[in-house]
Amino acid sequence: MPVGTQATIKGMTIEHVLATGAEMVLSNTYHLALRPGHEVVRKLGGLHGMMRWEGPILTDSGGFQIFSLGDLNKVTERAATFKSHFDGRVIVLTPEHSIEIQEALGSDIAMVLDHVVALPNTNEVITDALARSIRWAKRCLDAATRDDQARFAIVQGGLDETLRVQCARELATMDFEGFAVGGLSVGEPPPEMYRITAATTPELPVDKPRYLMGVGTPIDLLESIARGIDLFDCVMPTRNGRNAMAFTSHGNIKIRNAVHREDTRPLDAECPCLACKHSRGYLRHLFITDEMLGPILLTIHNLTYYQRLLAGARVAISEDRYEAFVIDYRFQQARSKKTADDSPDVL
Amino acid sequence: MPVGTQATIKGMTIEHVLATGAEMVLSNTYHLALRPGHEVVRKLGGLHGMMRWEGPILTDSGGFQIFSLGDLNKVTERAATFKSHFDGRVIVLTPEHSIEIQEALGSDIAMVLDHVVALPNTNEVITDALARSIRWAKRCLDAATRDDQARFAIVQGGLDETLRVQCARELATMDFEGFAVGGLSVGEPPPEMYRITAATTPELPVDKPRYLMGVGTPIDLLESIARGIDLFDCVMPTRNGRNAMAFTSHGNIKIRNAVHREDTRPLDAECPCLACKHSRGYLRHLFITDEMLGPILLTIHNLTYYQRLLAGARVAISEDRYEAFVIDYRFQQARSKKTADDSPDVL
Repeated sequence: MPVGTQATIKGMTIEHVLATGAEMVLSNTYHLALRPGHEVVRKLGGLHGMMRWEGPILTDSGGFQIFSLGDLNKVTERAATFKSHFDGRVIVLTPEHSIEIQEALGSDIAMVLDHVVALPNTNEVITDALARSIRWAKRCLDAATRDDQARFAIVQGGLDETLRVQCARELATMDFEGFAVGGLSVGEPPPEMYRITAATTPELPVDKPRYLMGVGTPIDLLESIARGIDLFDCVMPTRNGRNAMAFTSHGNIKIRNAVHREDTRPLDAECPCLACKHSRGYLRHLFITDEMLGPILLTIHNLTYYQRLLAGARVAISEDRYEAFVIDYRFQQARSKKTADDSPDVL
Repeated sequence: MPVGTQATIKGMTIEHVLATGAEMVLSNTYHLALRPGHEVVRKLGGLHGMMRWEGPILTDSGGFQIFSLGDLNKVTERAATFKSHFDGRVIVLTPEHSIEIQEALGSDIAMVLDHVVALPNTNEVITDALARSIRWAKRCLDAATRDDQARFAIVQGGLDETLRVQCARELATMDFEGFAVGGLSVGEPPPEMYRITAATTPELPVDKPRYLMGVGTPIDLLESIARGIDLFDCVMPTRNGRNAMAFTSHGNIKIRNAVHREDTRPLDAECPCLACKHSRGYLRHLFITDEMLGPILLTIHNLTYYQRLLAGARVAISEDRYEAFVIDYRFQQARSKKTADDSPDVL
């Protein structure tokens, strides 16, 4: 899912998003509750009507902001209390209110409000947040009124496999349409994330989608699919694109680098996207001159890259050759390290 | 012509530009000579290849920067000397060099280097700049080597009709494919601009296009067409769009205004553009949250507005009812003043 925090995937028209192959997008409850306000979104036709996006939309619950806004909030059993990051206004978010907001936004999938904590952390803090997340999940279910909106629970438990399994088992007994693995991709090493994902997914119903929140790099997606994940969201393709980094089948490209100045080649000769109809030299020029079209084109390219990668993964799975597909991907990227301009994966 | 100063119409893909109805675009010699450099543009396939724009492209000559960069330059008979506005580098621009750059850029129409001065100014300064502009026009013609590039001369002469007529007559004897009226729209009242345009165009060949540089508001365009002008460029539709102002058939709209917060109507019910598939409330939200899609959509809308207005003008001319067309336009806009939110024409 491309991320459309404020009811827009930054710089993209809906036609651009569709052309990347994306079928589903994510939007953010916390941001939209602040601006323009969920009642305004409702009046403007909900997220679907506002954005003109006809595919499914998933909204997060605001839980991630409990973690990411850090000092600006506090959590009690009743609610999370935020200080708005842009005007200091105090917002009290209960599980019931999170569902009410998401119902007003009119997303197809609402996430339960969960209590995300920083990692590493003490076992006490993690256990407390996990137990609260389970109680809040139940309150979200009880508060829901829309038949046309699915609800996904979120497994917490830090990097402790026992806690993760316990949380997953409890949530699996409740009436959710899907399950997310939350509280990962918050700074821990990728192998830790893979380990926890692998421990968690076997405890979740096989006939319901599993969503790994906020992940990740291309290889993170492939490794997590191997561990039973179906659905992802991440700002990486869009944010990195805006910051002049392109993912390609032959390694990452930092397009501001002087080496691209007179390069007539496209970013990726195999890519059918709009950016790849232009030369690297032109794309560099757009970034050097701070032209909006640079971020626009690299966002299109990176979203297309992610969608094509996962389309390839789906085919490989259906043809029962997924392991070879991942090995091949790792090999191609490693071989390209010498020819690409050696960008880091994450900006 | 939409303005693509740095080889991109800000925020637009080529597909967006085409969808507005635009057939021709403008780009800027001075900016492109600095970044990425005209030899780089040549290597990247010229402006057409870089931008993927297949229609005609007109490049200005750098003459306007002699005026607009003010203290950063000085003019001698041989050349204009600039201090680059972004890195202080000194650039010496002769008429010959301007043509050389434009040939490297590969535009379809090159403008001669002219000497633009601020208005009002003394008769002595204006006459001196006019005489130099004529000599430079001749030098540009002599320097040109490309058979596939047309060259347009530029009439100067400030707000003095006698000087304008004299300049137009001299240039009309030379072998140019078209003629521009320059040095206007630099702060003088619109009636002054109309008066000078009306005095100048009768002196220009009837079978060659006349281009009024840097103009203007919708009504400026209509009034100038009535005075014999065929071609315009202006940043107004794009710049105003980026600054949250929309031109509509029922008056101008400042989309940031709170009155639009819950408005489900499009900007203009008669407009077929992408922005008008969304609600005013959503467009306002995009600007309030500083999302790129706001400027993108309002740029699309304003360019579409300008193109539809001039398409209507062309039909009215061919049906011999142009005067009624302009009166009708003025009437519609005046009637709308009460219902629109009373934005100024220019931001």
